[in-house]
Amino acid sequence: MCSASKWVYAFSEGNGSDKMLLGGKGANLCEMTRIGLPVPPGFVVTTEACLAYLKENRLPSGLMEEVRAQLSRVEEAIGRRFGAAENPLLVSVRSGSAMSMPGMMDTILNLGLNARSLAGLISATGNPRFGWDAYRRMIQLFGKVALGVPDEPFDREMALLKKEAGVRQDVELEAEHLQQLAQRFLEVVREHSGRPFPDDPHEQLEIAIAAVFRSWNGKRAIDYRRQFRITPQMANGTAANVCTMVFGNLGNDSATGVGFTRNPGSGERVVFGEYLTNAQGEDVVAGIRTPKPIAAMAQEMPAQHAQLMELAAKLESHYREVQDFEFTIERGKLWALQTRNGKMNALALVRTSVEMEREGLIDRQRALLRVPPEMLEQLLVPRLDPSFKGQPLATGLPASPGAASGMIVFDADTAEARGKAGEKIILVREETKPEDIHGFFAAQGVLTSRGGKTSHAAVVARGMGKPCVSGAESIVVDVHNKVANVGPAVLKEGQVITIDGSNGAVYFGEVPTVEVEFSQDMATLLAWADEAATLGVRANADTPRDAQRARDWGAQGIGLCRTERMFNQMDRLHIVQEMILAESKSARLAALEKLRPTQKDDFRGIFTAMSGLPVTVRLLDPPMHEFLPTVAQLELEIAHLRHFRDAVASLEEMPETLKLLSPRLHHKYEPGLAKLLAGLGEFKGSHLEDDLIEKKTEVLRKVKAMAEVNPMLGHRGVRLAITYPEIYEMQVRAVIEAAAECVRDGIEVRPEIMVPQVVTAEELKRIGELVTRIHREVQAAYGVEVPLKFGSMIEVVRACVRAARLAETAEFFSFGTNDLTQATFSFSREDAENKFLPLYYEAGLLRDNPFEVLDVKGVGELMKLAIAKGRSQRPTLSVGICGEHGGEPSSIRFCHHAGLNYVSCSGPRVPIARLAAAHARLREAEYRED
Amino acid sequence: MCSASKWVYAFSEGNGSDKMLLGGKGANLCEMTRIGLPVPPGFVVTTEACLAYLKENRLPSGLMEEVRAQLSRVEEAIGRRFGAAENPLLVSVRSGSAMSMPGMMDTILNLGLNARSLAGLISATGNPRFGWDAYRRMIQLFGKVALGVPDEPFDREMALLKKEAGVRQDVELEAEHLQQLAQRFLEVVREHSGRPFPDDPHEQLEIAIAAVFRSWNGKRAIDYRRQFRITPQMANGTAANVCTMVFGNLGNDSATGVGFTRNPGSGERVVFGEYLTNAQGEDVVAGIRTPKPIAAMAQEMPAQHAQLMELAAKLESHYREVQDFEFTIERGKLWALQTRNGKMNALALVRTSVEMEREGLIDRQRALLRVPPEMLEQLLVPRLDPSFKGQPLATGLPASPGAASGMIVFDADTAEARGKAGEKIILVREETKPEDIHGFFAAQGVLTSRGGKTSHAAVVARGMGKPCVSGAESIVVDVHNKVANVGPAVLKEGQVITIDGSNGAVYFGEVPTVEVEFSQDMATLLAWADEAATLGVRANADTPRDAQRARDWGAQGIGLCRTERMFNQMDRLHIVQEMILAESKSARLAALEKLRPTQKDDFRGIFTAMSGLPVTVRLLDPPMHEFLPTVAQLELEIAHLRHFRDAVASLEEMPETLKLLSPRLHHKYEPGLAKLLAGLGEFKGSHLEDDLIEKKTEVLRKVKAMAEVNPMLGHRGVRLAITYPEIYEMQVRAVIEAAAECVRDGIEVRPEIMVPQVVTAEELKRIGELVTRIHREVQAAYGVEVPLKFGSMIEVVRACVRAARLAETAEFFSFGTNDLTQATFSFSREDAENKFLPLYYEAGLLRDNPFEVLDVKGVGELMKLAIAKGRSQRPTLSVGICGEHGGEPSSIRFCHHAGLNYVSCSGPRVPIARLAAAHARLREAEYRED
Repeated sequence: MCSASKWVYAFSEGNGSDKMLLGGKGANLCEMTRIGLPVPPGFVVTTEACLAYLKENRLPSGLMEEVRAQLSRVEEAIGRRFGAAENPLLVSVRSGSAMSMPGMMDTILNLGLNARSLAGLISATGNPRFGWDAYRRMIQLFGKVALGVPDEPFDREMALLKKEAGVRQDVELEAEHLQQLAQRFLEVVREHSGRPFPDDPHEQLEIAIAAVFRSWNGKRAIDYRRQFRITPQMANGTAANVCTMVFGNLGNDSATGVGFTRNPGSGERVVFGEYLTNAQGEDVVAGIRTPKPIAAMAQEMPAQHAQLMELAAKLESHYREVQDFEFTIERGKLWALQTRNGKMNALALVRTSVEMEREGLIDRQRALLRVPPEMLEQLLVPRLDPSFKGQPLATGLPASPGAASGMIVFDADTAEARGKAGEKIILVREETKPEDIHGFFAAQGVLTSRGGKTSHAAVVARGMGKPCVSGAESIVVDVHNKVANVGPAVLKEGQVITIDGSNGAVYFGEVPTVEVEFSQDMATLLAWADEAATLGVRANADTPRDAQRARDWGAQGIGLCRTERMFNQMDRLHIVQEMILAESKSARLAALEKLRPTQKDDFRGIFTAMSGLPVTVRLLDPPMHEFLPTVAQLELEIAHLRHFRDAVASLEEMPETLKLLSPRLHHKYEPGLAKLLAGLGEFKGSHLEDDLIEKKTEVLRKVKAMAEVNPMLGHRGVRLAITYPEIYEMQVRAVIEAAAECVRDGIEVRPEIMVPQVVTAEELKRIGELVTRIHREVQAAYGVEVPLKFGSMIEVVRACVRAARLAETAEFFSFGTNDLTQATFSFSREDAENKFLPLYYEAGLLRDNPFEVLDVKGVGELMKLAIAKGRSQRPTLSVGICGEHGGEPSSIRFCHHAGLNYVSCSGPRVPIARLAAAHARLREAEYRED
Repeated sequence: MCSASKWVYAFSEGNGSDKMLLGGKGANLCEMTRIGLPVPPGFVVTTEACLAYLKENRLPSGLMEEVRAQLSRVEEAIGRRFGAAENPLLVSVRSGSAMSMPGMMDTILNLGLNARSLAGLISATGNPRFGWDAYRRMIQLFGKVALGVPDEPFDREMALLKKEAGVRQDVELEAEHLQQLAQRFLEVVREHSGRPFPDDPHEQLEIAIAAVFRSWNGKRAIDYRRQFRITPQMANGTAANVCTMVFGNLGNDSATGVGFTRNPGSGERVVFGEYLTNAQGEDVVAGIRTPKPIAAMAQEMPAQHAQLMELAAKLESHYREVQDFEFTIERGKLWALQTRNGKMNALALVRTSVEMEREGLIDRQRALLRVPPEMLEQLLVPRLDPSFKGQPLATGLPASPGAASGMIVFDADTAEARGKAGEKIILVREETKPEDIHGFFAAQGVLTSRGGKTSHAAVVARGMGKPCVSGAESIVVDVHNKVANVGPAVLKEGQVITIDGSNGAVYFGEVPTVEVEFSQDMATLLAWADEAATLGVRANADTPRDAQRARDWGAQGIGLCRTERMFNQMDRLHIVQEMILAESKSARLAALEKLRPTQKDDFRGIFTAMSGLPVTVRLLDPPMHEFLPTVAQLELEIAHLRHFRDAVASLEEMPETLKLLSPRLHHKYEPGLAKLLAGLGEFKGSHLEDDLIEKKTEVLRKVKAMAEVNPMLGHRGVRLAITYPEIYEMQVRAVIEAAAECVRDGIEVRPEIMVPQVVTAEELKRIGELVTRIHREVQAAYGVEVPLKFGSMIEVVRACVRAARLAETAEFFSFGTNDLTQATFSFSREDAENKFLPLYYEAGLLRDNPFEVLDVKGVGELMKLAIAKGRSQRPTLSVGICGEHGGEPSSIRFCHHAGLNYVSCSGPRVPIARLAAAHARLREAEYRED
């Protein structure tokens, strides 16, 4: 079969870019050889040979002839002979597939050893212990990988031997012991494989190549490919790389080490790495000896150091990327054993991108593309010191990234008080409610024991850019006693904890954190990104302060300003509640009139912060009951009030009771009692209005009446405006008046008003008429022209289908993909993420969480439909997205291809989105939806 | 302007089909004249003249010349002269537009009366009182309609006159009084209009025509057109019909009456109607004298009776429809005054359709199209006797049509017991739960004080075809004391009430009902419908009994068999709960194995009832917590159990307490106490297991853990099968085993298995593999071939978008438009119908409730998308609908045009759907989506 094929390529023959044929490692060895780097001679048996082997269950005919021919060339090049009695050539056989699968397939070292060549090795190294150790290891590894002998009998012999020798550690064994062990291992192999250990080096090599090929279908490898979704097309078998063994442990003129061409922690342009003299690669890993920094080699081995610097420079200028390489110095001779692109942290990635571009090593496109957008998050939020290794006390959901430490506080009022006193606070709650908002402002971070990634705590914390861990269910919060239990442990108010909102971990005590580093290099890189991108990036921001921060992060406008966040602020919530509970329209109007000035001030502040840039204001969206206390809370309050009232009543009876006592006792207690009763009277007058219980009971009744079976699909968004038009009227007026005042003060404004939850064109038309009327009235009243755009959220499926009609009124669309995803899947996010979504990934039914990564096939199709319909009606229609997907790189890529004008995301994700938008543009050609 | 137009058409000139020009009434008068019926002479002033008048605010030039010319021809034809002193011609001017707007515009009678002609009228009739009465009425009507004089001054004069005359009733006034009144009325007109009452008959006529034209834009008419959505295109002004007045009150040779060409209550082919001799039309209406049946005329006025029969025959054979006509006999001469299509009840409509077709009067198409499908409901459920006029005690939502009477019962157990005892029961609950299901079986009807049209009570009752009124909020149910309060009234168990599920009314006592009449005529008509239709009709049915009934109603299969209904039956619910609460998979499997035989029996029964027809079984759909008690119920039970346990404990202490009493008392109580304690011990042993409270508490914990924020979008449908595959496995096995047993017994089966809530193709594929495996296993085990189809519900938006991929696995689709509508609108039905949907209709934002009438523009678009994608993948894909829309005629029409293969609806709606399917086919050409 296929006898015409060439199965084997010398490192000097192989095409370094053909990873499919040669595997990643093989291609790199060829490439390094090709560009003149000192790679130990060797050759690659191709992946095609692997597939042929696996198909026929035998090595293709002619293959071993090619191997032998290549081996002769290696012997010639290195000047040693395979299996020779003197200074023998030893080789390794290593796996290496096109897709990196580290450690998943097998490798055999020191092939070519037998009794004869071992003697040669010992005399060449002058180290019998090393020789015998290498031999016994080779026997075990070969036995296991190539002949299927389990570890257990080897381990048993080793244990027996150590007992006989009276030692406890392997390293205490002498050369004679190891010699003895090698003999016993040979016996083990014979027993278990039913044949003697192959003594012929060529036979060893043939068996080893087949074994490496077989390891492609080993359990580990198959599991790995399934786990990482490596499809059959991408996965085409492994190559077998046969390479001359070189030893860094042949004396003090030998060494081994690893290096990076630049510092992978800081990006600094200096070769970075470690080495050990007279050592093997595994010694560096084992950590028994402490390696030295590469800089030390300049003194210790100056010539080799110079060669190494030259090697590094050559690698980088060839690969045009920071390289992570391995080297060995065997008796003064430097060998390059491996190279690959260096893994770096975000800081280093950004710095090297900018510097390599300036050095002319890479162009701007490459500089942008080599930084994965998601990695920037490291630079935008504080994170735990990477060297910290502690065990978390509890784990919840990573609800808002970043790390923070602080003293535990169980309620927002205390948080505010202690925060004002300059203390660092972590607010710990069962779950948070709008009335906790002042606690968020005061806290470094938020921890809840209930709720998912869209819980109130998570959403608010993300908006503020504060760390949050939500749903840490093992923490049982007892707010009344100001303690929390975590299993047997007790957390008290004032104790310090650390939360990591990037992975959901909660730790006792203060864990050191690494602070935000928004460097000049980052600014440079992101400026290049903005030049490259065609998709704009806006931020979601609800307050002047958030708006300013968003602008600092490079937002090109506000894509979503949620007016309900303004309602939720502590000083307004009671007016909002008054408005909601109003019995008449006039009472509601009165409450709204109280809210209007504060809303106007908010908008003025935001418009001022964003002068010259668009600000999209969304009118009130959530159902009204979200602003009211819960049924449980009210019932508790009422019960407490009743209890208290009863206690007061029984206290009041005390004077009568006292009269039944003897006159002496009576006389004794009376004065104190009089004072107590006086105090009680005063207290009642100021705190216990007679009708408080009735009032609360009435509120409870209303809260119950407002309860909804499926609040996600309930009375909210524009539906509120149909039942209570006065709310939107107030908000629209506040927006346009704020804009008018800015215009009057010479500030350039670009307000946009957006209606949530639109289902029918008629709804939008009605609100549009209201906006037009108020726009006209305010312009007349202020005597200025106020620019204004009017648009629709597209977050209901029907709005997608009816987009052409909506575009008759809407000048822009903004996709609310959080809600749209829920409606498209009929998945309630809060329920799904807790109850069944994890099983969907596990069972392979969904690749990603559709609430994190936009579902291109479902939700994306509806978006494309809406855009096509909308623009067919209004070609100039501007389209954005303001769901959480607006900050997720692969979703941003889809948005670019779907023809959106901008994405809008939470402030801290703006830099990520800017870079992702550039990537989307630069990688257009590769894009496919699958 | 437009002087070239012809503004006026004699009845003999007009084209009877040109309603746009002549109005409906005018066209009919022309048509009757044209076919030789004795219509009093007259003419029509056209709608074009009306529009010209309204535009120019004056009658078009030349119009009155045409009117006078036509009037001369009328005078000639009738042999009287307009305004003459002897036997004068009087005319009426009546409005009449193209669209019927009864009573919304004005009419003036007896034009042509003045002092001179009145004398002529009096001498011709010999009745001065009649003459003066006609005159004073004409003055008031003309004054009001033509001159804008309000009623109030006329009424004041009338009151004054009656006081002067010393009488209380108008009818007590003598001729002299009325003469006096006419004089005063003339004065009133002069005062209020500032001009004398026009004496010139021609002037009267001109003013009257203009007044009728103006009434087109009167407030009543405009409101009516808005209310009934009569668009400007349809509404093009009113004609003015000028017609010779004829009088049925000129002696015993005169009469007036109304008739139907067939009996509108029964459809019997016999002229049906009433008349009064020596009377005017208004006398028939006023009801002062009792009219006689038309049959009586055969004796009383045989010649005229014969003429009338001929008239009726002519009308029917001309219009080819049952006619509702008015006639007057003036001095022996029969005049036809009006005809229109007769309004009939459903019984009459069906019978006349079948009989007229057999008589050759109409063809089958017409026979089908003249019966509105919705009207058949009258014949399919019992309804209140139409003659009953009582006031309802309370009103709720019409949740399941039909009327029923019975004794109030407040719990399902009592309902079952009393039902078995043969009593008629109405189950009255705050709301119902699955565990009430045996109460439904026992009851004649169900009444709830809470919940909407999709509440448990409503859905279950509709499925069973039993009447239900839901959400009658004024009824406060106190289940513990077995009473309900309705305002001050108290309803006790055992009292009789009647509910009308067709309009939501609840009455005290037993109201007579009219029973179902599924006649041979109906069967004939529906057989014709099936021949005409291309869209099939199946039924939703969950039990063998429902299936049999559905087959009787003509269902061509079961389109939806909900397996959860089977779970809900009382004898199974506890096993289902055991399954849900199982701590381990093995415990769950054990519970499922207990359920399998009962499910299999159900399926066998259904397959047997539907032998030869397809039965689509939907696997388990609702979230598991629906099968469990509510949190509130459990909390109450636990509290009661604790209370009871404490009571028992204190009883147990009694012997000790008793020892403190005096020996005599002690001795007296001891024997009784010993018995009490013995009984208590026995009771505790049998009823109060120690761990019951703990068990309930554990269930409570689980129920709380299963609670969902948005259950509609929660853990349900196929998502359950991903987490608990064993449930679907059991159900699939039960279906196929049941089918196999039927095959073995020679029964032809066509089972179809359907998966609910499918979101991804992969979900469907997994379940498909499960079905295929079990299908193979069962066939092998039974040794028979079992036909089987596998398909998907399409009720999630994403399923519509991904329909092509789903059709790779699905052999059929079934649209679940209840859920699909909720997801498309983001409206939770339960919340929307109570909270904001009513306002949407009121504000004109939605024309219909999208949960009742399919939203063609939104949901319909998604359906069409899914069908196109599905059939692009699998051209033979069968498509149905099983949401409630499947029984609603306009939705059925959409389904026909969207290319569905069948609709499936609740059993009692099958006949309606069959007729609607025929209508959809026959009216294809007229269809448009707007």
